Amino acid sequence: MNDKTTSSWKVFKYDGTDFSEVEEEIAVEFPLTISIDEIEFATIVCTPTDLDDLVIGFLASEGVIRFLQEIKSIQIDKNRGFAYVELINPIDESKFDHSKRFIGSCCGKSRQFYFKSDVKTAKTVMSRSTITIEQCVHLMKRLQAQSDSFQRTGGVHNAALCNSGEIVTIKTDIGRHNALDKLYGHALKSKLKLKDNVIVFSGRISSEVLLKVSKIGIGILISKSAPTDLALKLADELEITTIGFARGQKLNVYTHPERILMEEN
Amino acid sequence: MNDKTTSSWKVFKYDGTDFSEVEEEIAVEFPLTISIDEIEFATIVCTPTDLDDLVIGFLASEGVIRFLQEIKSIQIDKNRGFAYVELINPIDESKFDHSKRFIGSCCGKSRQFYFKSDVKTAKTVMSRSTITIEQCVHLMKRLQAQSDSFQRTGGVHNAALCNSGEIVTIKTDIGRHNALDKLYGHALKSKLKLKDNVIVFSGRISSEVLLKVSKIGIGILISKSAPTDLALKLADELEITTIGFARGQKLNVYTHPERILMEEN
Repeated sequence: MNDKTTSSWKVFKYDGTDFSEVEEEIAVEFPLTISIDEIEFATIVCTPTDLDDLVIGFLASEGVIRFLQEIKSIQIDKNRGFAYVELINPIDESKFDHSKRFIGSCCGKSRQFYFKSDVKTAKTVMSRSTITIEQCVHLMKRLQAQSDSFQRTGGVHNAALCNSGEIVTIKTDIGRHNALDKLYGHALKSKLKLKDNVIVFSGRISSEVLLKVSKIGIGILISKSAPTDLALKLADELEITTIGFARGQKLNVYTHPERILMEEN
Repeated sequence: MNDKTTSSWKVFKYDGTDFSEVEEEIAVEFPLTISIDEIEFATIVCTPTDLDDLVIGFLASEGVIRFLQEIKSIQIDKNRGFAYVELINPIDESKFDHSKRFIGSCCGKSRQFYFKSDVKTAKTVMSRSTITIEQCVHLMKRLQAQSDSFQRTGGVHNAALCNSGEIVTIKTDIGRHNALDKLYGHALKSKLKLKDNVIVFSGRISSEVLLKVSKIGIGILISKSAPTDLALKLADELEITTIGFARGQKLNVYTHPERILMEEN
């Protein structure tokens, strides 16, 4: 089965004057169905790399597991596009309830939270880590330099976990959310201490993206793209510093600017 | 409740040298829970405009309805973020089964289809409509000129239904899929004949996007962005002409180039 992130396709390319027929690289899109203890849980469409990280991160994001040790085994069948997960303890039925809309306020969390499971799993980020503008600019430059498959296909997103101004690991996916879940799974597997880390991201900051960052427990999110209002309200409440439109030397700080150092220490 | 597509946010803007504090417009993100006959069906996060079109298009896309007449009533409660749908006939239980992974081949459709419901609802597009390169370039230019809220926020996608080289209707959403569902709902409501129409789109061509276009019954899709390989395989099979990277005078034709006329007739 396909292990690659790109495949080639015959394209009729119009350059403004003429057509030419060329082979171009296209982002691979791979449907993966996650089954938990023999029950189909979800199908996600993804880039077929780091599938175990993806499954672990997805289950953690969805609140199915909190720790890696809750998973007994993961078997990936790439030919059929299935991930078979066995848990140590039988899955709590209420975990399948993750699409239920949350109404009203409880647990000290605001009406911004629209899924019950998010109220339980999204956490206020206590990180006191800081970052300089120079580091932000540098990290985004590094992300883009390493985004090889994006440069070839224009079709994927990148998310990188960074520490002390350098990229620790970078994950790629056609789905923005999947790229973050891959980071999350990798962090759980590698038992990384994340408190002082930063996520640098190519995609838009939507509420779902922001919630994932809070679940991973990261205090600073830097994106090349725009945020939404709901994401910013959640960032405000969960105490996450959001930086958007980080392009070249420019950037916008939307929430919790106290983590941004104006000058090098 | 919020009827706007943007809201304002206080931003600390770094221009490469200095910070300034400015109010900027941000894309609004609105969670909408769709309940069918008092059962919660799905929660989608969207831009809070054209919500009835969105609900109709979403239900048609998911295979819950095929015709508008199957819906008895839709009530939108913007304050609670709910859309209450009543159907004429009680919902077929198997319709709630829409996440089940489809394996093997039947119905003459290939293994590219990963959801059972798509096998039933995605259709081969019989349209014999054609388009010139000039029209493609013109339509993308029109889409971008009309993408006011994108220009202000960088956070939304646009999808336009076009006919005879002009835009018929344009829908905006923070979600790529929602923008297409809004078009679909609008077309069903307005009883538009779609056979000779074209969709012009700001987002990437993923498999989900392609499947929606086939369900709407459109033969030509023009996008500013990149396609994925799975989307192209489906386009090939469903006989949809896909055009990507339509930027300025340039574009790429990926599938079914027979609908592209090289010169004006």
